[in-house]
Amino acid sequence: MAPAANGVSNGAQAPTPSKYDPTFTQRVLDTMGPKTTERNRVVLGSLIRHLHDFSREVELTIDEWMAGVHFVNAVGRIYAESGQTRNEAHRVSDILGLESLVDEIAHKIVSDTGVDPTSSAILGPFWSPNAPFRENGGSIIQNPAPHGGRVCLMHGVISDLVTGRPIPDAVLDIWQASSNGKYDFQDPENQTPNNLRGKFRTDADGKYWFYCYHPTAYSLPTNGPSYQLLQMMDRHPMRPAHIHIMVTHPEYKGCTTQLYPRDDPWLATDTVFAVKDDLVVDFPPLKGDDKAEVELNYNVILAPKDYAGKTF
Amino acid sequence: MAPAANGVSNGAQAPTPSKYDPTFTQRVLDTMGPKTTERNRVVLGSLIRHLHDFSREVELTIDEWMAGVHFVNAVGRIYAESGQTRNEAHRVSDILGLESLVDEIAHKIVSDTGVDPTSSAILGPFWSPNAPFRENGGSIIQNPAPHGGRVCLMHGVISDLVTGRPIPDAVLDIWQASSNGKYDFQDPENQTPNNLRGKFRTDADGKYWFYCYHPTAYSLPTNGPSYQLLQMMDRHPMRPAHIHIMVTHPEYKGCTTQLYPRDDPWLATDTVFAVKDDLVVDFPPLKGDDKAEVELNYNVILAPKDYAGKTF
Repeated sequence: MAPAANGVSNGAQAPTPSKYDPTFTQRVLDTMGPKTTERNRVVLGSLIRHLHDFSREVELTIDEWMAGVHFVNAVGRIYAESGQTRNEAHRVSDILGLESLVDEIAHKIVSDTGVDPTSSAILGPFWSPNAPFRENGGSIIQNPAPHGGRVCLMHGVISDLVTGRPIPDAVLDIWQASSNGKYDFQDPENQTPNNLRGKFRTDADGKYWFYCYHPTAYSLPTNGPSYQLLQMMDRHPMRPAHIHIMVTHPEYKGCTTQLYPRDDPWLATDTVFAVKDDLVVDFPPLKGDDKAEVELNYNVILAPKDYAGKTF
Repeated sequence: MAPAANGVSNGAQAPTPSKYDPTFTQRVLDTMGPKTTERNRVVLGSLIRHLHDFSREVELTIDEWMAGVHFVNAVGRIYAESGQTRNEAHRVSDILGLESLVDEIAHKIVSDTGVDPTSSAILGPFWSPNAPFRENGGSIIQNPAPHGGRVCLMHGVISDLVTGRPIPDAVLDIWQASSNGKYDFQDPENQTPNNLRGKFRTDADGKYWFYCYHPTAYSLPTNGPSYQLLQMMDRHPMRPAHIHIMVTHPEYKGCTTQLYPRDDPWLATDTVFAVKDDLVVDFPPLKGDDKAEVELNYNVILAPKDYAGKTF
């Protein structure tokens, strides 16, 4: 987009005469006082400029503006009325793609080695700091899913982006919903705390292995403003099936990400836009292990803490 | 390095290489389904594009994004906890300049006659549909302000933008805060309903006249998220003193606006940005009328309902 001088943008075209006061946005920005921090000046300045450009570009009507005001109030009202447990503002920002974008901005590493580190994906609201350490070869399934679920042997190697060598003593923290689409927090009737959660430490060869479930797709809540917004855009509320992992080691940049079955129907339209190509995986049938039906072989590549990558 | 494409803007510069996925924003937009209305597609599409451009432009951090999520929840929480009477989202949009901008977009008339119609300014939250009709020469002061206040004889002519002729039977609806900065709604201890409100009809010469107060500046509330946002920008919460008027006639475009004393210290930095040059007025001392200390002569120019003005 090519903004005109004075911060007035006319959308995707070159600047054209605008009937709106060309000094307005700058006057709003100029009220920021000398004690504004440099970062607040940059962030809030850009936010105000984009809000104004958006309003002029679409010639936002008073009714549309008022609908937006009501929407913001309704979002926070659900938060208040749920006893501050239902973070609807988080969900709205997710369906607008904002959390995924901020995640990319924070974690994007562009490699100069010909090999890319594992992509990150959003943390989401269901990670817990309390997941227990478990032994390799153990299982995160404390409570078998009441409606069934395919047990999966998940295993792989964590390795160094630069040297390609395996990383011993890395920690892989995994969490996932049960086959009813619910996490332990959300499902006290069927799940004890830390069901489908666990931390595993890689062995001397950088390997980890344990049992979990093949993941299940689920819907975001359909009774609040975020769902109303999805309906205005004729969008579905589904997240593709996924397994969350967070891989850490003191000498490496951590990687928080999600893994998705290749045959999931919601991959291309994930309602929170967290799918990336290298995170789409296969779950082939597993033979010769009577504890699991399928397996997932997933190797994670971490960048050393001081790795800068390609600069822009 | 390929230049960015597909909706990735880098703010005010021409497109430069971006390390962020250049297809991301378009992928989010492409999830809108066929049943999205054309207007929703335009408005929400532009909103999403500007939100993403803003985030990339400032490289929004995860902590900043999360602060924004908390802020939105806090705004709606005040609305919920006040029994839905305190519209904090409205106030936040005002201090970002949004209501004034939307008002300009809705009401801007660019004249081709050499004379401009009276500028509009925001309605604000204190207009009432219940103000009584009063006779010209009457007063809107039902309850003398307990801390004093300078009575003003306000008078003027309402005339036609195109012909210059006076408009009989136009209705001028006025409302104002008392000298303590509060409207009747907010101040039941000192004010009866419709104090400092009234509707007046112009006579055969297009004239109106009545008694009101010289207006008083006041502060927005300083105990909520909107004030926190002002503090982040090192801004004051003051509105300049003002008188609200809404002028209507069935054959003319209505004009809702505000009038400000020229000597008010907050004119240039009105916290909601509603001041325009032709709305700044003088209140000279009035001699020979023992009911008022000062006068305000204010003429209003209305555009006929079918007046198109200059096109862009």
